[in-house]
Amino acid sequence: MLWRDLKAWQVYGANTDVGKTIVSTILCRVLQRRAPPNGLLYLKPVSTGPQAEADDRHITRYVPGIKSRCISQFSQPLSPHLAAQLDGPSSIPTSDASIVAQVKDLLSQHSQAGGRYAVLETAGGVLSPAPSGSVQADLYRPLRLPTLLVGDSKLGGISTTVAAFESLHVRGYDLDSVVLFDDPKWANHGYLEAHFARHGIPTLALPPPPARRDDPKDDEAVLADYYQACSESASLTDLVDSLQRRHFARVSKLTSMPSQAEAVIWHPFRQHGIPHNIIAIDSAYGDHFQAYNQESDLGLGTPTASALTGLTPLAAQPPAKPLLTPLFDASASWWTQGLGHGNPELALTAAHAAGRYGHVMFAHAVHEPALDIAYNLLSTLQNPRLGRVFFSDNGSTGMEVAVKMALRASSQRYGWNKDDDRGQTPVAILGLKGSYHGDTIGVMNCSEPNVYNEKVDWHQPWGHWFDPPTLLLRNGVWELSLPDEMRPACAVQKFPSLDALFDFPARADDAARYEEHIKTTLDTLVRHQGRRFGALILEPLLMGAGGMFFVDPLFQRSLITVVRSNPELVGSTIHPGSQGEGESKTKREPNNQDWSGLPVIADEVFTGLYRLGRASSSSFLASPTDVVPSTSTSTQQSTSQLQPQPQPPLPAAIAPDISVHAKLLTAGLLPLALTTASEAIFQTFLSSSKTDALLHGHSYTAHPIGCMVANKALDEYRRMDTDGSWDGFRHSWPSSSPSESDPSSSTPPSANVYSFWPLPFVTALSHHPRLRGCFALGTVLVLKLASEGSGYTSTATSSLQSRLLTLLDSDGCGIHSRVLGDIIYFMTSLTTTQKQVERLTKTIMEALNEE
Amino acid sequence: MLWRDLKAWQVYGANTDVGKTIVSTILCRVLQRRAPPNGLLYLKPVSTGPQAEADDRHITRYVPGIKSRCISQFSQPLSPHLAAQLDGPSSIPTSDASIVAQVKDLLSQHSQAGGRYAVLETAGGVLSPAPSGSVQADLYRPLRLPTLLVGDSKLGGISTTVAAFESLHVRGYDLDSVVLFDDPKWANHGYLEAHFARHGIPTLALPPPPARRDDPKDDEAVLADYYQACSESASLTDLVDSLQRRHFARVSKLTSMPSQAEAVIWHPFRQHGIPHNIIAIDSAYGDHFQAYNQESDLGLGTPTASALTGLTPLAAQPPAKPLLTPLFDASASWWTQGLGHGNPELALTAAHAAGRYGHVMFAHAVHEPALDIAYNLLSTLQNPRLGRVFFSDNGSTGMEVAVKMALRASSQRYGWNKDDDRGQTPVAILGLKGSYHGDTIGVMNCSEPNVYNEKVDWHQPWGHWFDPPTLLLRNGVWELSLPDEMRPACAVQKFPSLDALFDFPARADDAARYEEHIKTTLDTLVRHQGRRFGALILEPLLMGAGGMFFVDPLFQRSLITVVRSNPELVGSTIHPGSQGEGESKTKREPNNQDWSGLPVIADEVFTGLYRLGRASSSSFLASPTDVVPSTSTSTQQSTSQLQPQPQPPLPAAIAPDISVHAKLLTAGLLPLALTTASEAIFQTFLSSSKTDALLHGHSYTAHPIGCMVANKALDEYRRMDTDGSWDGFRHSWPSSSPSESDPSSSTPPSANVYSFWPLPFVTALSHHPRLRGCFALGTVLVLKLASEGSGYTSTATSSLQSRLLTLLDSDGCGIHSRVLGDIIYFMTSLTTTQKQVERLTKTIMEALNEE
Repeated sequence: MLWRDLKAWQVYGANTDVGKTIVSTILCRVLQRRAPPNGLLYLKPVSTGPQAEADDRHITRYVPGIKSRCISQFSQPLSPHLAAQLDGPSSIPTSDASIVAQVKDLLSQHSQAGGRYAVLETAGGVLSPAPSGSVQADLYRPLRLPTLLVGDSKLGGISTTVAAFESLHVRGYDLDSVVLFDDPKWANHGYLEAHFARHGIPTLALPPPPARRDDPKDDEAVLADYYQACSESASLTDLVDSLQRRHFARVSKLTSMPSQAEAVIWHPFRQHGIPHNIIAIDSAYGDHFQAYNQESDLGLGTPTASALTGLTPLAAQPPAKPLLTPLFDASASWWTQGLGHGNPELALTAAHAAGRYGHVMFAHAVHEPALDIAYNLLSTLQNPRLGRVFFSDNGSTGMEVAVKMALRASSQRYGWNKDDDRGQTPVAILGLKGSYHGDTIGVMNCSEPNVYNEKVDWHQPWGHWFDPPTLLLRNGVWELSLPDEMRPACAVQKFPSLDALFDFPARADDAARYEEHIKTTLDTLVRHQGRRFGALILEPLLMGAGGMFFVDPLFQRSLITVVRSNPELVGSTIHPGSQGEGESKTKREPNNQDWSGLPVIADEVFTGLYRLGRASSSSFLASPTDVVPSTSTSTQQSTSQLQPQPQPPLPAAIAPDISVHAKLLTAGLLPLALTTASEAIFQTFLSSSKTDALLHGHSYTAHPIGCMVANKALDEYRRMDTDGSWDGFRHSWPSSSPSESDPSSSTPPSANVYSFWPLPFVTALSHHPRLRGCFALGTVLVLKLASEGSGYTSTATSSLQSRLLTLLDSDGCGIHSRVLGDIIYFMTSLTTTQKQVERLTKTIMEALNEE
Repeated sequence: MLWRDLKAWQVYGANTDVGKTIVSTILCRVLQRRAPPNGLLYLKPVSTGPQAEADDRHITRYVPGIKSRCISQFSQPLSPHLAAQLDGPSSIPTSDASIVAQVKDLLSQHSQAGGRYAVLETAGGVLSPAPSGSVQADLYRPLRLPTLLVGDSKLGGISTTVAAFESLHVRGYDLDSVVLFDDPKWANHGYLEAHFARHGIPTLALPPPPARRDDPKDDEAVLADYYQACSESASLTDLVDSLQRRHFARVSKLTSMPSQAEAVIWHPFRQHGIPHNIIAIDSAYGDHFQAYNQESDLGLGTPTASALTGLTPLAAQPPAKPLLTPLFDASASWWTQGLGHGNPELALTAAHAAGRYGHVMFAHAVHEPALDIAYNLLSTLQNPRLGRVFFSDNGSTGMEVAVKMALRASSQRYGWNKDDDRGQTPVAILGLKGSYHGDTIGVMNCSEPNVYNEKVDWHQPWGHWFDPPTLLLRNGVWELSLPDEMRPACAVQKFPSLDALFDFPARADDAARYEEHIKTTLDTLVRHQGRRFGALILEPLLMGAGGMFFVDPLFQRSLITVVRSNPELVGSTIHPGSQGEGESKTKREPNNQDWSGLPVIADEVFTGLYRLGRASSSSFLASPTDVVPSTSTSTQQSTSQLQPQPQPPLPAAIAPDISVHAKLLTAGLLPLALTTASEAIFQTFLSSSKTDALLHGHSYTAHPIGCMVANKALDEYRRMDTDGSWDGFRHSWPSSSPSESDPSSSTPPSANVYSFWPLPFVTALSHHPRLRGCFALGTVLVLKLASEGSGYTSTATSSLQSRLLTLLDSDGCGIHSRVLGDIIYFMTSLTTTQKQVERLTKTIMEALNEE
């Protein structure tokens, strides 16, 4: 929460009984002098103990005329979580959300009424429990108010004060000042002042409050004197000046960020020649950014430097509009978010890895987080082919590694040698039109010429790309559009439900037609045109950056089937000299997981790890007729903490030989990618010569922070997958979860397809006149607008996108979304609530209904 | 510190006065029963207050027969940092290093003597000051003993206990158990038990100790009864069992990591067909790994599972050898380390960014850490050409971006169009033989065919690579070897000092010869062979992964000069249609920082950001005759917190148009890369069409953790660069720092070349018969062994590398180094001390003198 005029601070204590209320009282007295009438609000959201002693009474007594509010007052002088339990069910707000909502309302009203200052006093220490049982510092985190920490002046107070700061710091708070009572005996002030100065935080020592008198009147009098003296001291004036300066500096920084960015930042995927509104993100929490939107900050513009850096409150500003708007992060920050922004558990996990290791090199070395994530991922994916894990930094590099692996494997098997190839086009890949695998040039070469790569001088399209059948929900029916090259069989097929689409046994005719088409095409390419292919690359079910295409899984399945069952179609005659060459190759044992035809690479960077509701998106290509491995492989058994296995292992028939994971892997915190491969692929690189090795490795390979955070993320995902966390979403797709009602049902496992976006909503959208169609899979909702232009360069969706930034819901939240040509998409994290999704559906529908 | 048999724990308190000594006493009593005679050691390294009340006396009284040691006993009952000051200078150890060294010695002796248990009790709270003034949790971090935290059972104790845990967690400790007194009134135990269970940590409640009696005898008796009852309780047995189980689990995990890694990890740059010793890194701190080395753990092998997971101490083990050896990280963890492993400030910074943002998307958005690092880097580099910052994930992707930028700029200026190029080789780059720019295929194409890329199926060598003159120190003289193509002018030139080498005005003849050679070559390539070049790429001064070549900076300077001064040599006729096309291009104003000839890309991923002692390694190419910009550019002025500028701005003559930074950028914590470009390069991509934009962007672009850590790193580097931190190293290269003695000296700025490795040591090495030569630049020391084979595949250096792992110095530390063919290199971080370097030099010389 941030306004230009209203300056609000929260007061935390390093421990209980360190003088939070006394410091708050002094602070309020100084602020009261500077504020207009009713310009100061004191908030004690949670208070425990008898009314008469309550802190807000104390404040009211010693800061005459102050506005004071308490939200949750409990009768017992205990930790709020116990006090709330003891008071039993009542109308007093106890949930974090309800308390935060009331604080927001009170601050907003205060701002509207011309308020200039607010002081929010917390209860107990920084991590003392809130009424709900969560800790205070987590309770108030959505507000992220600047903080004044009351230090502990007793023996041991250095430790508690610094530890309290660290717990606040880890939660992303700005600490503006530390205040503590001066106690020369322990001299904590001197130490703390030096310590906090290193963080740029001033520390102030106050004279200790007078000892308690027996006579209440006396007591009141000496305390009043004390307050009077303190609040008129120069050091308090300095403190408040410093707090104000920091407020103005923050406002100034925030509001000037867009223009400062324009001066030096070269944004990704942005045409800087076209003016664009830049959103300045102050912080983020859960599913929301707290964002400063220049465009919506109308009529104010960037305040002049003097008004912002000076101490004078801004005069004559228009109505007290908040500077920050919460925006739902509907691109999941480019498809990465899993466990919410500003997640304190992830922050602590990252810090623990940093504190234990920093980064340690991974060549010929190993560390626990890397080993753990390798076993954890293999056990999560349940792919019987995969046994090796290679580390890189992002989806693009992970795919580069996958391509290097696959091409070497096929070149070796088929006896292709780069050195004999002078003048020939390199071995190519098989893929799908609309695919996208990253921005490095090697994997750009895995996509057909398109708008992303056409201006990249070194892009070389080395592949053949099938035009895949794709799906859209239109008027409540799933329409499958066949590409031109497969017509005139029938241009559009219709399915009443996703179950019908995923019922592969019932679609045997479709499969036969697909396979025939694929065989014919390959025959032409390989036999007649003499082309060579070294890998089949798929983004299972959903192609992302290429334009959000929902691909018929049966087509992808057919591709794998054809390539694996007909090696003669893709590979040349096996070169006799290339097999069995080198020492280790002769040792190679028969491997029933060996690849056939071509190595199959699954690019699950976007679609894997529960983005579409399942650990592996390759599982959507499985059929109930596939043979499923009965138990985990020995590799997977050796991980010590096996998690429950909600989903059956992937059938080997459709399991990729190489699969690539990133994005959600680290829950949306930092880059890390894992390329997993079969033992057969791995053995391709074995020999007695170093030059045969996969000579790839980034400096930060397997950096411990990434690995440890990824372990935490996978553990959380698997927990949610099995403990019913997503049942509410599953139930909104009733026809797709028959196993819930009848576990003995013969419905194929692939039919358990659902979305976080309720089916009734998606169906309603599919009838909307402004849409050409839509679909939802897992956390992803895709709308295709019924506009003329299409493709990446279309601007048809931008007005809807802009409108969603300012069409605020009942909680005052907008939606930050991304578009791809005529596509606008929305994505939740894995912890988004049903209630939140409901709010989004309302806003989206409202925006579509406008005009 | 870790042994199989000796189990050592440290006891921390959530606050002072929470009962650490009481809990330690109880713990010791239980352990004493299990230990053989003299098998238990109690350590109170730092104690304050009168001797008689000291904790070790208390322990000795209530745990009869215990071995008890105190290292630093101060007389005043104050925080140790004050108590140490008050006691004044004495023989009592007060520095962190001396206390930790004594603890190590005592524990080692105890282990040698057959000790089975040790309990180390800390002083005050977790962050209470040590005698040196650093905090307890930092003091003991090098030992990283498993921890027992005594919780706070008073009101507010939930907050202090959890905060204490978080401060320990951030510092990389393993917390094995929480123990606190049961106080039903505040019921902290219940809350904490649930909280810590989520972290897998058991929490134990003890009955509160008896109230203090007036009569000392009475007091002693009731306390003895209390201890008796507690130590015989089942819950204490459970606690100790649990602590032991965790010890054995840790040993088991550690010792089995190498074999577990063999089963699933695909290591970077490793030929898995060749058996290799895998080092298991338990943790790292400062410059050292704590590593388990299978090979040196001779005679023990991997213990059987039953011996490790059971509760019975391992019987009949050979002498009590520590399982972990500190190894100096002499590759700086693949050239990344800047501020030391396990740095608590960096861990807190990373956590703060995670807590404030997590990751937030960067498309059309901006956040403070990203903006700050953009300005911070520009201001650090002091390159007058650079004004734009693009974010990616590592050096390789950063270079991909640089190549995309440069090729587009030159193609546009010279009117080359990919679509007209059918059949032509793409526009190529100019570089040096031995260069290396990363592992993604696009930048692999920027290097000549070599061992790294020869087996990459898609590698295409698109460039011309000059064979550069390189330097080695041999027998105290700097020898410059000219490549074959530049002979027979003279094969080897000699320089008495680096000053002479860097005195470019005095080497005018060399420059003329270089320029002539470059011009002739370009003329042949472009005019006669019709080749097209789009960028000049250099690793200034030192080429890393390609083989650690110290390149004559005058040759690189000559390359830039020729390319910039003779655009007609490289570019075709300027295509009339390609300039001024598009709206924004017509608006383009004359820019005196425009590139000429070819865009120059500096790959400073390895060499920049103080790896070689300077912010920008391009500065080594500057000559005193160059015109130096007088002031910062306006871009650089707008950063609010300008740091002191120790080094002059780069002269525009040699300043690159694009420069790429990674590795040290994040101080060795996590991946992040910045590609900085000139405004002229940036403007190439401006138009009214989205497809002309640089369509590159990773999901985690500008992730806040990386940006915030990088800001912290640059701030620290610049502080050290200006506050004299490295003066000790500078002074060891006396002839190269004349400006220190005589600031008015006319010595060219480029002469200020020095190394963290003392000149006398490097000179001595250069005379060593086992070396063909050596050199040192900044933090890097390179030895070229006088062996037959050479190049990447040589194994000549591996015996020296192995020997250094086991040749322990007086502190018991080995050296973990990396080799590149016949090269072995050593690298410090930027915080490595002179004392540490001295120890390294002794070990290296000793290892070379063996045989």
